[in-house]
Amino acid sequence: MKLIAIDSSGLVASVAITEDDNLIAEYNVQYKKTHSQTLLPMLDELKKMVELDLESVDAIAISKGPGSFTGLRIGSATAKGLSQALNIPIVEIGTLEGMACNLYGSNRLIVPMMDARRSQVYTAIFGYEYENGKYVLKRYLDECAIDVKELTDRVNEISKENDMEVIFLGDGLPVYENEIDTYVSANYIKAPSHMNRQRAAAFSYLAIEKFNNGEYVKCEDHAPDYLRLSQAERERNEGIRNKGSNY
Amino acid sequence: MKLIAIDSSGLVASVAITEDDNLIAEYNVQYKKTHSQTLLPMLDELKKMVELDLESVDAIAISKGPGSFTGLRIGSATAKGLSQALNIPIVEIGTLEGMACNLYGSNRLIVPMMDARRSQVYTAIFGYEYENGKYVLKRYLDECAIDVKELTDRVNEISKENDMEVIFLGDGLPVYENEIDTYVSANYIKAPSHMNRQRAAAFSYLAIEKFNNGEYVKCEDHAPDYLRLSQAERERNEGIRNKGSNY
Repeated sequence: MKLIAIDSSGLVASVAITEDDNLIAEYNVQYKKTHSQTLLPMLDELKKMVELDLESVDAIAISKGPGSFTGLRIGSATAKGLSQALNIPIVEIGTLEGMACNLYGSNRLIVPMMDARRSQVYTAIFGYEYENGKYVLKRYLDECAIDVKELTDRVNEISKENDMEVIFLGDGLPVYENEIDTYVSANYIKAPSHMNRQRAAAFSYLAIEKFNNGEYVKCEDHAPDYLRLSQAERERNEGIRNKGSNY
Repeated sequence: MKLIAIDSSGLVASVAITEDDNLIAEYNVQYKKTHSQTLLPMLDELKKMVELDLESVDAIAISKGPGSFTGLRIGSATAKGLSQALNIPIVEIGTLEGMACNLYGSNRLIVPMMDARRSQVYTAIFGYEYENGKYVLKRYLDECAIDVKELTDRVNEISKENDMEVIFLGDGLPVYENEIDTYVSANYIKAPSHMNRQRAAAFSYLAIEKFNNGEYVKCEDHAPDYLRLSQAERERNEGIRNKGSNY
């Protein structure tokens, strides 16, 4: 099967074209341009480079979240447009699970963290288990938006309970480097540069497995999963609550 | 420091731009075009996308071999051209070591294999050891061109001696899949699609370390390391030998 994978959930814009277990092409950019300036030109560039016939594509993979609200919307809109135009399904990949797949087969606790502002990160804690000839991702902490300090507490606990060392990755890492260095008592390292950001090629690997298991949705059924309310929604709710408390 | 890394040693054409521990952009293509059609247009595309000022680049990293003779020459010529024009050094990365770095931190024996034709592969056997807070690559078998059957024997021995499981990667894998499946008695897996080919971004990680350790060469001192004689050289030598034996 042939798949286009897209990620624009964080600072990186990433596109990959994969056919079964062959990565045909990938393009990743982490630069100060907006995803609306980069994502479609990148896909167009790859399409021309490998003479891709869009009619031959079987599915679109997209990071469903968490991540930047605007970034997720740009990615989802792009995926939905392609899905509708080509009449092919969307395979949704959790952003954090996709990031963990950069470290496929690691024997450490894998902690992807994305900056969620307000001292919070979007995070989860994963680890690979080797079962029946392949590595399967196990969740030690479900996807959530939590304070960095709380994450470091959970990392310390889970590392101790499971006697596992830790590897961190993601764009939250440079932002909260001090907190990590100060509060993490577990033995940890940071992922090297080629493994520490979102990468559509890694999402593709998961997406082909999911597609082959029948795990995909129609264009109209896909929506990003933001994991928490947007600032506008929070302020509206706080306004209502404040108003209520005035009565 | 800022680095351009290039690989065209095998089926993949790959370019990456890295600044210290940030991968700014990468472009990887595995398609039936020749490297002379892909490599420079890919670099030019990245340069425009991230508005790269070539004058700001500190070094060029290149896979020094082994690999396809023509591919290595195209890569080296490109690296030398950039190095000379920009008056910056070249960091040479062994192709197989660069490939192993795709699996940074793995606890398996890492066996990159590139198809060298005539039932041979360019290969080596590596493993990561964790020392002083970082993973260091240890060689269990030096870079060589050997018959696939001999490689499988060495993998079985070294796996047993060190009680380590194995992960294979590289474009030799689909070519010699039957031999691997038949002769490897050690417990092994094959690297997933996003980790199993040359990737300039992984070479960059090694190259920045080397550059910081002063391990780089001048433009005129770089040459590919083919590991074995070219077909023309072999035939010439065989011709001489055959001629000799007739006397």
